Amino acid sequence: MTITSKQQEDIDRARATSSQTLRPTVPAMEELLFQSTAVLDHGFLRVVDYMGDDSSVVQAARVSYGRGTRKTSEDAALIAYLMRHWHSTPFEMCEIKLHVKLPIFVARQWVRHRTASINEYSARYSVLDGEFYIPSPEHLAAQSSTNRQGRDAVLSGDEAQEVLHLLRNDAVRSYEHYGWMLNDGTADQQIDGGRLGLTRELARIGLSLNTYTQWYWKTDLHNLLRFLRLRADSHAQYEIRAYAELMLDIVRQWVPLTHAAFLEHQMHAATFSASALAAIRRMIAGESVNAQNSGLSRREWDDLRSALELSGS
Amino acid sequence: MTITSKQQEDIDRARATSSQTLRPTVPAMEELLFQSTAVLDHGFLRVVDYMGDDSSVVQAARVSYGRGTRKTSEDAALIAYLMRHWHSTPFEMCEIKLHVKLPIFVARQWVRHRTASINEYSARYSVLDGEFYIPSPEHLAAQSSTNRQGRDAVLSGDEAQEVLHLLRNDAVRSYEHYGWMLNDGTADQQIDGGRLGLTRELARIGLSLNTYTQWYWKTDLHNLLRFLRLRADSHAQYEIRAYAELMLDIVRQWVPLTHAAFLEHQMHAATFSASALAAIRRMIAGESVNAQNSGLSRREWDDLRSALELSGS
Amino acid sequence: MTITSKQQEDIDRARATSSQTLRPTVPAMEELLFQSTAVLDHGFLRVVDYMGDDSSVVQAARVSYGRGTRKTSEDAALIAYLMRHWHSTPFEMCEIKLHVKLPIFVARQWVRHRTASINEYSARYSVLDGEFYIPSPEHLAAQSSTNRQGRDAVLSGDEAQEVLHLLRNDAVRSYEHYGWMLNDGTADQQIDGGRLGLTRELARIGLSLNTYTQWYWKTDLHNLLRFLRLRADSHAQYEIRAYAELMLDIVRQWVPLTHAAFLEHQMHAATFSASALAAIRRMIAGESVNAQNSGLSRREWDDLRSALELSGS
Amino acid sequence: MTITSKQQEDIDRARATSSQTLRPTVPAMEELLFQSTAVLDHGFLRVVDYMGDDSSVVQAARVSYGRGTRKTSEDAALIAYLMRHWHSTPFEMCEIKLHVKLPIFVARQWVRHRTASINEYSARYSVLDGEFYIPSPEHLAAQSSTNRQGRDAVLSGDEAQEVLHLLRNDAVRSYEHYGWMLNDGTADQQIDGGRLGLTRELARIGLSLNTYTQWYWKTDLHNLLRFLRLRADSHAQYEIRAYAELMLDIVRQWVPLTHAAFLEHQMHAATFSASALAAIRRMIAGESVNAQNSGLSRREWDDLRSALELSGS
Repeated sequence: MTITSKQQEDIDRARATSSQTLRPTVPAMEELLFQSTAVLDHGFLRVVDYMGDDSSVVQAARVSYGRGTRKTSEDAALIAYLMRHWHSTPFEMCEIKLHVKLPIFVARQWVRHRTASINEYSARYSVLDGEFYIPSPEHLAAQSSTNRQGRDAVLSGDEAQEVLHLLRNDAVRSYEHYGWMLNDGTADQQIDGGRLGLTRELARIGLSLNTYTQWYWKTDLHNLLRFLRLRADSHAQYEIRAYAELMLDIVRQWVPLTHAAFLEHQMHAATFSASALAAIRRMIAGESVNAQNSGLSRREWDDLRSALELSGS
Repeated sequence: MTITSKQQEDIDRARATSSQTLRPTVPAMEELLFQSTAVLDHGFLRVVDYMGDDSSVVQAARVSYGRGTRKTSEDAALIAYLMRHWHSTPFEMCEIKLHVKLPIFVARQWVRHRTASINEYSARYSVLDGEFYIPSPEHLAAQSSTNRQGRDAVLSGDEAQEVLHLLRNDAVRSYEHYGWMLNDGTADQQIDGGRLGLTRELARIGLSLNTYTQWYWKTDLHNLLRFLRLRADSHAQYEIRAYAELMLDIVRQWVPLTHAAFLEHQMHAATFSASALAAIRRMIAGESVNAQNSGLSRREWDDLRSALELSGS
Repeated sequence: MTITSKQQEDIDRARATSSQTLRPTVPAMEELLFQSTAVLDHGFLRVVDYMGDDSSVVQAARVSYGRGTRKTSEDAALIAYLMRHWHSTPFEMCEIKLHVKLPIFVARQWVRHRTASINEYSARYSVLDGEFYIPSPEHLAAQSSTNRQGRDAVLSGDEAQEVLHLLRNDAVRSYEHYGWMLNDGTADQQIDGGRLGLTRELARIGLSLNTYTQWYWKTDLHNLLRFLRLRADSHAQYEIRAYAELMLDIVRQWVPLTHAAFLEHQMHAATFSASALAAIRRMIAGESVNAQNSGLSRREWDDLRSALELSGS
Repeated sequence: MTITSKQQEDIDRARATSSQTLRPTVPAMEELLFQSTAVLDHGFLRVVDYMGDDSSVVQAARVSYGRGTRKTSEDAALIAYLMRHWHSTPFEMCEIKLHVKLPIFVARQWVRHRTASINEYSARYSVLDGEFYIPSPEHLAAQSSTNRQGRDAVLSGDEAQEVLHLLRNDAVRSYEHYGWMLNDGTADQQIDGGRLGLTRELARIGLSLNTYTQWYWKTDLHNLLRFLRLRADSHAQYEIRAYAELMLDIVRQWVPLTHAAFLEHQMHAATFSASALAAIRRMIAGESVNAQNSGLSRREWDDLRSALELSGS
C-alpha cells in the first residue's frame, strides 16, 4: 500500500476544509485536490495546489484588467495562436504543485527539467521506506536491436521469472542491510543495543535505484507542457511515461483549451526540415518520391513516411 | 487617473465572483485581490492571483501529506531556520501574480530579475497611453558627491521648477509627435485622412523613458524576497523602491511568518567578512578598534560601524 | 562615430596580445575577436570571448574523454540528429560573450531572453552618450493594415522628412535638457557653477527610447539559437533583426556544422499541426484541398500554403 | 583504475594540440586542462574548458572596451566590492566545463544546482561500468545524535568490517545480475546465446546508488561559487565535499582575486540576524551576554558563539 491510513487521514482532513476565494477556480481540479492516484506498483501522484486556468493565459496575453475571458471560441482561438507560435510567457501564468512518489531512477530523469521547484524527502535526515519498483511482466521488454534506447519483444517464461526474482531479491536484501546498518529500529529491524548505527547519509548508498522516493514538485504550465512533450512521448521510458500520461490527463481537466491546442499543435504535430519540405512539395506535385530520391537520410525519410502515413517504404 | 471607469468595472466584476476552494486561502489576500493601489503619480500595483501560504512552505519542507501546519510556534521556528540557512526551495512553493503599471525606466531595472514570468503591454501591437512619471518636488534630489549612485540634497526653487517643467514638456511634446506619426486617432490626435500612419513599432521610439507601461508579473516567494532584498533597500532608486515597499507590505499580509523571518534574517541582518569578524572579536575583548587599526577598507569600516551603531568614526 | 579613438586603442591593444592554449580554438573567431562591426546608425557588436566549437557539442553528447571529433561527416550527422530532436544540453556546452551597443527600445526586446548574463552600462552611475537611433528613410514603414505587429509601404516625401525631423529634434532636445539638469559638464554642456546638478538616475528619465545603451551579453549556443530563431525571423522588428542577422553570421563562422543543422531543421523548417498534416495527406493523395475544405483557420491555411509554396489561394 | 589506457591516450592527444588565441588565458588552467584528478575511490574530475579570468569580471563590471584590467590592486578592490554586495552578473561572465566521474548518490545532490548544463552518460543507451563507491574506514561515521543530518564517531572493528562487506557484496552482486539480465557480454559476462537480453533501461534499475556515473558539467563562476558555498561547507556530506574542495582549489588557480574575495566575504564570513546584532552591540558595550539573556534561540546562540569564537557557553 502506498498511502498509510495515517496519511489518508491527513489527506481527508485537508479535503474537509474549504474556503471562499476570488481566484480562478476549476471545479474538476477541486475534485482532484490532495487525492492520490496510484502509478506503477507503489507510486502515486497528487495535485496539492494549482493557480490559474485557461482564462489566466488569455488575461496575461491581453494584459487585461478583468478576468480576460470573452467568448470561449475567442479564447480558444487566441490560445491556439499562442501555442502555434511558441509563445511561452502566457502559459507561464498558470502553476501546479504535485506530490509524487516515484522510483529513484525515474526521479533522475525527471529532475533534468530544470525550471521547476523541488523539495525531496531527505535520506540524510530520515529513513527511506522499504518499497521498490518491480516491473509487471508485460513491461519486461528486451533491448531493441534497432534503437539503442528502445524496447523490443517482451521476455517470457523462466527468463522473465528470473529477472523479476533477481530484482526483487536484490532490493529486499539491500534494504535489510540498510536497516541493519542504521540499527535504529525504523527500518523494520531489531535494535542491537550495544552497536552504533551508521549515519543515514551513508547507509542509503547501497540501496537500489528502484527504491521509491517522494517529492513536492511545482512548475508552471509552459514548463509542464515541455515536460509532457518529451515524457508523454512514445520514446520516453515506460516508467516516467506512466506519470506523464496521468499528468496530461490532469492538464485536460485543468485547462481544456490549452490541452486541446497542445495536442493539435505540439503532441500530434510534426516538424519538417527544409529538405523534407522539398520532398513533400514534390509529392504534392505528383512526383513519386522514395527513400533513394528524397534527398533525406534513411532515418529522416522513415520519420517523414510515418508522419504522413505513407505506405510502402 | 490611472484606472479608467471601464477598467474599474472589470475589476469590480472580477471581485463579485467567488468560489469554494480546498486550496490554502489567505483572507487578507482575498481582500486585496484585483484592487489597484496607486504608486508614484500614475502607476499602480494589483495582486491578480496567489498560491500557497506560510503552511505551504512548511508542508514542502516536511514533504508531508496533509496541510503541513503543526503549532504556529513550530512553523515559525522551522521557517526561521530555513530562512537563516538560505534554503530556497520551500519558499519557491508559494507564487504571486501582479499587474503593475510602471515607468519604463523602472521596468528596465525590474526585468533584470530573471526568474519571473512577464507579459508586457506591447507597443508594437497597441498604442501607449500618454502618461509620464514626473517626480514630486521632494524627490528632486541632487547627485550625491560621495556615492556615485546616490542622491543628496533636494533641489528647490526655480531650479526644481525648471527641471519639472523640462521633464513634463519634453514628455508631452514627444507624445504629441507620437500621435501625429501614428495618425490613427488613438493618441488624442485628429486623423489626417490622406496621410499614412507610421508603424507603431517605430513611432514609439521617440517616447521618453518616464512613459508608463504595464505588465503581468509572476514570481515565486523566494525570488520575490530576493527582489525585495535589493529593491526595498535604501540603496535602490526611490522609484522602484516605492513599488517594492508596497510589495513588502503585501508579503506581510500574505505570509506573516515568512515576512517576520525575512526581516529578522535578511533585511535587518548584516554579513561580516572574515576581517570584520576579527575586528568585532577584538572589540568584544575590550580593545579599542578604529578605522586605522581595524584592518578594513574605509568603506567596509563605515559599514561595520553603521551595522553595529558605533559612535565616533 | 560609434567607437572613439581611445576605445579603438583599447581594442587594438587587446588584439595585440596572444597566448598559447589547449582549448578548442576557431581561427575565424580569432579573426573577429574584439573588433566592432557597425549595426544601425550608431550601434555595434563585438565578440569578446567564446568557448567551444562544433566538436564540443559532439564531445558532450558522447561524454567522451578526448576531443570528441571523429570524421566530420559523423559529427555533422550527430549534430543534425541532436538539432532535429530538440536536444538542448549538448548545445549549451558552447558559450559566447558579446559587447553590444544598441538603442534602448531594442535592449527592451533583447532582455526578454532570460537565460543569459548581462552587464549593462549604468545610467545611475555614469552619464549616457548623446547618440540616438534615427531610422534610415527606407525603413520608415507605415503600419500594416493586416498585421497588427507588421510594417507596410515605406513613407516618402515630406511625410518621411517630417517623421525623421521630429525624431531627431526630440532626441536632441531631451539630451540637451539632460545635460542641463546634470550640470556636470560631461554631457557637452557648460557647467553653471552655482547650481546643483540633478542626480543622474533622475536626469535620464526624460531621454528617449532610441537613445543608445551598451552591455556585455553572454549566453550559450542553445539559447543563442533560440534568440536567433525569434529575432532573425522576418516577423521580428527590423532593428533587432539587424543585430540577429549579424549574430547568425557569427554562428556560421564559429560552429559551421551547428549552423547548417540550425538552418535545415529550425530556421527553414516548418511545423504542421495535426489538422495541417491531415490536409497534406489529402493533397499527396491527389485531392484538391483549398481554404474552405481544409479544416484549417484562414491564418493557418495561409501559413500552410506559404510553407508548401502552393499557388492559388 | 578510473581511467583506462585508451582514455588516457585520448587525453594525451588532446593535450598535445595547442593553438594561438587572443582570449584571456590562464597558464595554471592550461596546466590542468584535460588531466584527471582522482576523487574518492574511483571518481575523477577534469577541467575540459574554461572562459575568462579575473580581468573578465572587471571588464564586464566596467563595460569597458579593452581587457578591463588596471592595476591588480584596483581590480582586487573592485572584485571584493562586487562580492561583498552580492553582485552576481560580473561573475557570470566566466565559465568552466568539467568532466566528472561520481557516485549516483552524489550526482543526485549535485544536480539540484539548476543553473548549469549537464550531459550525463546514458544508462538507457550504454552499459554502466562495474565501479562502486565504498567508503574508506575512516569515513564510516555513526549517525550524529544531535544533528539529524550529521555524522558522529567513526565505526570501528567488526562493525566497520561488516558494513564495508555488505556494501561491497551487494553492489557486486547487483552488478553481476545486471550483466546477466543484459546478456550482451559487455558487463564482464558470458553471453548466453539463446536468451534475450533485458532492455538496458530496465536492467540498470537494480544497481545500487553507489554505482559510478559520469557527466560533462558546465556552469558560470557565480553559480560555481554558490555550489561551493554549500558543498565545500562542513555541513555538506563528505563525499560531495571531496569534489567541492578540489573545485575550490581550481577556482584558486583560475581566478585568484575572486577566490580571495570569496573566502573573505562568503566562506569565512558570517551573517547575523537583527537579534544577533543587538546581542553583539551589548557585548561590545561591555555587557555580559549569555544564552539566557541573549534573546536568541539556543541554536542561533551557539552559531553566534562559534562565529565570534567566544569561550564558555
